[in-house]
Order: sequence, then structure tokens, then C-alpha cells
Amino acid sequence: MSKKAIGILGGMGPLATADLFKKIVLMTKAECDNDHIRIYIDDNSSIPDRTGCILRGGENPLPYMRDSLGKLESCGADCIIMPCNTAHYFLPELKKDAHVPFISILESTADYCKEMFPGKTACILGTAATLEMQLYDKALETKGVPYVTPSEEGKKALMRIIYDVVKAGKPVEECRADFEAVIAEGIKNGADYFILGCTELPIAADELKLPYNFADPTYALARAAILFCGYETV
Amino acid sequence: MSKKAIGILGGMGPLATADLFKKIVLMTKAECDNDHIRIYIDDNSSIPDRTGCILRGGENPLPYMRDSLGKLESCGADCIIMPCNTAHYFLPELKKDAHVPFISILESTADYCKEMFPGKTACILGTAATLEMQLYDKALETKGVPYVTPSEEGKKALMRIIYDVVKAGKPVEECRADFEAVIAEGIKNGADYFILGCTELPIAADELKLPYNFADPTYALARAAILFCGYETV
Repeated sequence: MSKKAIGILGGMGPLATADLFKKIVLMTKAECDNDHIRIYIDDNSSIPDRTGCILRGGENPLPYMRDSLGKLESCGADCIIMPCNTAHYFLPELKKDAHVPFISILESTADYCKEMFPGKTACILGTAATLEMQLYDKALETKGVPYVTPSEEGKKALMRIIYDVVKAGKPVEECRADFEAVIAEGIKNGADYFILGCTELPIAADELKLPYNFADPTYALARAAILFCGYETV
Repeated sequence: MSKKAIGILGGMGPLATADLFKKIVLMTKAECDNDHIRIYIDDNSSIPDRTGCILRGGENPLPYMRDSLGKLESCGADCIIMPCNTAHYFLPELKKDAHVPFISILESTADYCKEMFPGKTACILGTAATLEMQLYDKALETKGVPYVTPSEEGKKALMRIIYDVVKAGKPVEECRADFEAVIAEGIKNGADYFILGCTELPIAADELKLPYNFADPTYALARAAILFCGYETV
């Protein structure tokens, strides 16, 4: 068996981790249980809030992420993926402790955008930290993907969608108006499609059945991990 | 932090494992990521088919299950749950190697049936192995829950639903006729509700939106695990 195993450094948030896990299972070409990829998950709900650390000096999540990384490596993971865009702010530091490669959600998404929406303009949606730290900017620029970003008002609406609705387990219908406003602004600024750059956003967009073009980083990451492990996607 | 962590011995099958994980997250009372339970998952797709071993002398899954058990315990799991009813055939043997308690899907479901359908008659649905090894019978009898079981024809229809459709990743619509036939037979035999005693069955029943009373063992197990760990359900 030369095929590889995936380690999911999760809990950021738990529902996004479950979403990534399910996407990998559904997207793997398989006829029976044994055709699937072995996946180790540490759904580590104790990891402090990433945005809170980056923007407000809250507790550093890195020691907690290192703990999860060590556990996943001990289990036998051949690569590590993190279903949290904002957490990728800490990736350069976290990588120093890793003995196996990380597959970046930022790079996977940039590859996906380039392939699916060639020449079109993206609008990056995400947490305030993801946007202010410009986490997606470099990955998109490297691949030559043009993009626009939300205004201050748009960032506030995104934080309400992510924190006050999805992470809080509230009905997603409560964030429809905010989501529509963010999209209307993006279209006005020249966006052809939207990168759902926080793992809570695909969950909300799916349930709201919004009729726009989206690039789902959770999907892009699932696809990259499946291919890395030597499996095929359906 | 006196609260406990869950270990999911999964991969039997992978989609059922994702279903259990998501149910635990959605059913846990939480306002933010950090309010959730820490969950370790080994989605061990290499575990040989349980039914194949029990009924046809196929490879023994126990050594693979022991491997997962050891990994989950090393990570720090305080209890182990298995989202596979048939796998519980091996539980008495597997328990001998465990240093933390298993929460049985069979006992969790019997508790749930007694509470939700008092005095009513269950019909046990599951794999041929679960039915022939009478895995649910003792748990239901201990709690005084009356039950009926499917005929040989019904067992064959259940195996088609579980293996040829859900585990094979086929559209669940393909198993609607088989599912309806199994239910019609159960009602004729006096059943008031149906135990979806294979973790692939709640997935099919949900998607088909069948209008009958079901007891979902994955739900019952998620609830029991959440309460064991010192958390509340929503």
C-alpha cells in the first residue's frame, strides 16, 4: 500500500472540519469502504481564536496547533491540511515543526481559481484577519489571478456571518441580508466570482442557495489532498 | 478543564463516520468553537468488511480495529465510539485491549428507543450480519423494548441498500423501492418504528425523506457521547 494518509488539523471550527471531512469522502473515487483514504482528524476545539490573536492580541494558537500536529504525525499522517483560512497566517511558523508537508488552502484555492475562472476577477471573502493580513493576496498574485477585496463595511458584515451566525450555530437565514450586501458590493467593484475564504462561508452559501459563482476553498483543499495521496476524484 | 475527549474509531464506513462527527458538532450546545468537544478520529478505511468476516470467513478486522484504538488512546481520547453497528460484534474482544470505556451504539440506541417510543414495537434494520448475530436483540431485551426483524427477503433488500447504493456512493434514489418494501413488511409484522441499525441507513433515510418513525443509532450514540463527556445537547 503506497497510498498516503491525510491528517486534518481541525477544530477551527468544528463544523468546517466536518464539512472538509465529508467533502473528501464524497469526492474520492471509491466503490467500497476500503477504496477510501485513511484520514486522521484532531478536532481540537481548544485552539484559541485565530482572528482574536492576530487583530486583538488574544492568546497565541500556535502551541495548540503544534500539539495537534504532533498527534497527527504520530498517528501516521503523510500530509497535513487545516480547514481554516485564517489559521494559515501561522503556517510559516508551524511548518518549522512539521516532518510532513502541509497542503495550503490558499495555494490550493489559487490553483482552483486559475483553472475554473481563467482571466476572471475574484472577490476575496473572509475574516477581518484574513483580509487585513492579505493571506490570499500573495497566493493569487503568484498564479496571476486578479482580485478585489471588500470594504470596511463588507468586512463587518462578513464577521457577523462567520461569528454571530455559523460559528454560533444560528439558522443561516439570519445572515442572508449581510451575504447579499457583500456580494452586491463585490459585483459593483468588478468581481466575476467570490472566494469563500473562511471555512464557515461555504456552509452558509450552500444552505442559502445563493445564485452566484463561488470558489470554495474547502473543495479546492479536499481535491488537492485527494490527489496528493495518490487517489482519484469523482 | 475536566471535560472529556471523544475518540471515533471510524472508517466503517467513511461517510457514516463523517455523519456521526457532524451530528456530534451540531448537537453540542456551543456558542463558539471553544465550547465544543475535542474529538479524535481515525477514519481507518483499511479495516476489512465486518459482515464479510462474520458471515463469509473474510479477513478479521480486529487487528485493524486494535491499531485504531491504540492511536486514539495515545492521542488522549477518554472514550471510544464506533459508527458501525456490525463492528459491535467484535466489541467484547476489542474491549479487552482498551484502557478507556467504549460507549456502545447498541445500548445507546436501546436507551433512546425506551425513552422516545415507550411500549411501542421496533423493527430492527441492519446488515445481514447484525441481524443474524442478533446484535440488537440482547440490548433491546435488557431494556424491555419489544421488536420484530426482517424476513430473508428483507435482509437481501437491506444489503442492496447498504452495499450497492450508500457504500458504493450511488444516488440514494436507487434504493427507494427496496427501502419502502422493507418498511411495508415491518408494518405488516406489527412494527411501530424502525431502528436504522446500520450507519449507512440514516444517510439513505434522510435523503429519501421517508415519512415513517425512525430511531437513528448514530443520533443516539452522538447524544450518549456528548453527555458522557460532560457537555450538554441542544
